[in-house]
Amino acid sequence: MNEKTQDKVTSRLEAFSDGVLAIIITVMVLELKAPHGTDWVAIKPVISELISYIMSFLFVGVYWGNHHHLLHLVKKLPASIMLANLHLLFWLSLVPFATGWMGENNFAPFTVATYAVLLNVCGIAYMVLQKTIESAHKDDDELKQLMKKQTSKEIFSLASYASAIPLAYLNSYISVAIFFGVAIMWLVPDKELLGKDNWSE
Amino acid sequence: MNEKTQDKVTSRLEAFSDGVLAIIITVMVLELKAPHGTDWVAIKPVISELISYIMSFLFVGVYWGNHHHLLHLVKKLPASIMLANLHLLFWLSLVPFATGWMGENNFAPFTVATYAVLLNVCGIAYMVLQKTIESAHKDDDELKQLMKKQTSKEIFSLASYASAIPLAYLNSYISVAIFFGVAIMWLVPDKELLGKDNWSE
Amino acid sequence: MNEKTQDKVTSRLEAFSDGVLAIIITVMVLELKAPHGTDWVAIKPVISELISYIMSFLFVGVYWGNHHHLLHLVKKLPASIMLANLHLLFWLSLVPFATGWMGENNFAPFTVATYAVLLNVCGIAYMVLQKTIESAHKDDDELKQLMKKQTSKEIFSLASYASAIPLAYLNSYISVAIFFGVAIMWLVPDKELLGKDNWSE
Amino acid sequence: MNEKTQDKVTSRLEAFSDGVLAIIITVMVLELKAPHGTDWVAIKPVISELISYIMSFLFVGVYWGNHHHLLHLVKKLPASIMLANLHLLFWLSLVPFATGWMGENNFAPFTVATYAVLLNVCGIAYMVLQKTIESAHKDDDELKQLMKKQTSKEIFSLASYASAIPLAYLNSYISVAIFFGVAIMWLVPDKELLGKDNWSE
Repeated sequence: MNEKTQDKVTSRLEAFSDGVLAIIITVMVLELKAPHGTDWVAIKPVISELISYIMSFLFVGVYWGNHHHLLHLVKKLPASIMLANLHLLFWLSLVPFATGWMGENNFAPFTVATYAVLLNVCGIAYMVLQKTIESAHKDDDELKQLMKKQTSKEIFSLASYASAIPLAYLNSYISVAIFFGVAIMWLVPDKELLGKDNWSE
Repeated sequence: MNEKTQDKVTSRLEAFSDGVLAIIITVMVLELKAPHGTDWVAIKPVISELISYIMSFLFVGVYWGNHHHLLHLVKKLPASIMLANLHLLFWLSLVPFATGWMGENNFAPFTVATYAVLLNVCGIAYMVLQKTIESAHKDDDELKQLMKKQTSKEIFSLASYASAIPLAYLNSYISVAIFFGVAIMWLVPDKELLGKDNWSE
Repeated sequence: MNEKTQDKVTSRLEAFSDGVLAIIITVMVLELKAPHGTDWVAIKPVISELISYIMSFLFVGVYWGNHHHLLHLVKKLPASIMLANLHLLFWLSLVPFATGWMGENNFAPFTVATYAVLLNVCGIAYMVLQKTIESAHKDDDELKQLMKKQTSKEIFSLASYASAIPLAYLNSYISVAIFFGVAIMWLVPDKELLGKDNWSE
Repeated sequence: MNEKTQDKVTSRLEAFSDGVLAIIITVMVLELKAPHGTDWVAIKPVISELISYIMSFLFVGVYWGNHHHLLHLVKKLPASIMLANLHLLFWLSLVPFATGWMGENNFAPFTVATYAVLLNVCGIAYMVLQKTIESAHKDDDELKQLMKKQTSKEIFSLASYASAIPLAYLNSYISVAIFFGVAIMWLVPDKELLGKDNWSE
């Protein structure tokens, strides 16, 4: 198989993933029901829905950025990578559902814990995709190094999400703060710490 | 017509199909209404909707994968292929509707049978697209071989879906098991059986 | 500006249009409310919604095909073409709304007439886009010829849609038959008549 | 990093943005509930929703056009640009929500003022993206000049949107007229004024 064909394969996987991620991120806005009144009192119950929306927007946005850089390194595309990618998209596709449930119930502990579980599962699915790509590119050193650097951040994220599950029953706003904290950790470039952008080439 | 122009034609057909498939797969999540309570009792009625969602996600995911590989082989694009592709997308676009109906009614026999009919029609539309592509590429041996290998799997799928129609009235969970079985058959690579990935290049 | 840059411009216009068209065509399925019963009686009121869906799917599908071939010929991209394209997308974006209204009201004359008006406006917007492209490519003979061939078909379509407006008050099914007739006229290749596919290169 | 890789990076950022913008622009049509009657009386309450839809369609359409030309100039893609782009998309994603609220409440002053605030925030987010791109391309003179030309138009837009906030309480239709005025200012090419298309290359 020549170079041209391979290019096309990766680009369609990216196009499909971009499509699904773009829809996931935008579809959540449909859950924000326009309030029926026209003043601050009417908009108040929308606040918790808005906060969940912002949180999930950041979460999916971070995934898009990381997914973007991960697929950038893919040079061959066995069925296993396509499956692992579909698996990740499946869990991410449940984010709008979990977001709507949490927002509608004003961050009730059970809904926040469910959300935390979903974030954990998404994180694991992402690591599975990473490992799948790694095992298909065994002699690619650049890829290995980039993965190693990210793994510590990912394990920290998973541990944070896991701690947010029981903490939701103590005070669900602690969990919400954890979700935002992790998202910001991913969004702020590591430039100062590592001398390099985490998202730059 | 030169090579460059032809490339562009195929890529836009793929982009449009990817868009439609990405929307079909994601839009189904909108059918999952966030439960109004916040405990396991509230989430229970959602379970059957969730199962139908997973099933249809797998189904459309398999179609995306196969469609991806099929179009990969297309070298010319007469109107007939564009029509056959639109025809396939039409039937696939009804999947969210059938999924929502089945999930909402806890796998009532009639809804499961309807779903099985739709899967059958989608399968036939896919075979029509395949034949159309084949007849437009009469001297492409690589394409012919790949098609032959897939056809037996497709006929087995169609037979399974057909058997799921009457079986739904016996016990609809038998049909659901068949749907999952067929999806898994497509997702698991044939590596062990045929010495080759079904989705790899 | 070099060739490479120009390529990119056209491809993003196509990508955006494809995105909008893919969403328009798929979003209509959301209007099909899953019936709450589980037998033929429950599915009956869905029939007229299903028919409108099929009609609009064909209509938007034809537009996608024609738009595809039209943009294919674009070699420069002044603001005027981008505007004319946005203008066309605007009217097409109202198709799901008109479709839902007509389906929900069992083809009541007023809704069918409104639908016919919208199809007319879409057709005019398409011709405006065509003229805009033509006037930006004054010395492109290939483009001029293709346009001439299509124009007679387009005028016939517009006349048919126009006749469907008053006919809807006589019997709305006559109008529905006209809509289907025009769609089929576009979908069936002209091969026999003109010795050439209308959608092939 | 070579030229080829860089190309791919930008194109995926564009594809994702196009996806999100296409969904934003189309999803608003879902807010247009098909009227349940079938005559002019039934369609009347839809009019104000339709006007808000048209307004937001124009607004997002203008953003797509400008975004298109802005990204066209991007030659490197540090994390900061990706973040600034995500930030812009976030605010734009709230447009369907604000549109629905305003349309449903017949341009009640509070909803129109909220809409004006959102347009302002989107405008600021766009300028932030512009500055971010500018500071990443310090020695690109072509980019600097194009930015300078646009900046005056942008500041005029922001001032107009800002004035629309208090004016909504005087008469909300003045604000609506301002929104349309600004959109039209962006859509009409500057050819006559500046001797150059604002959207052409």
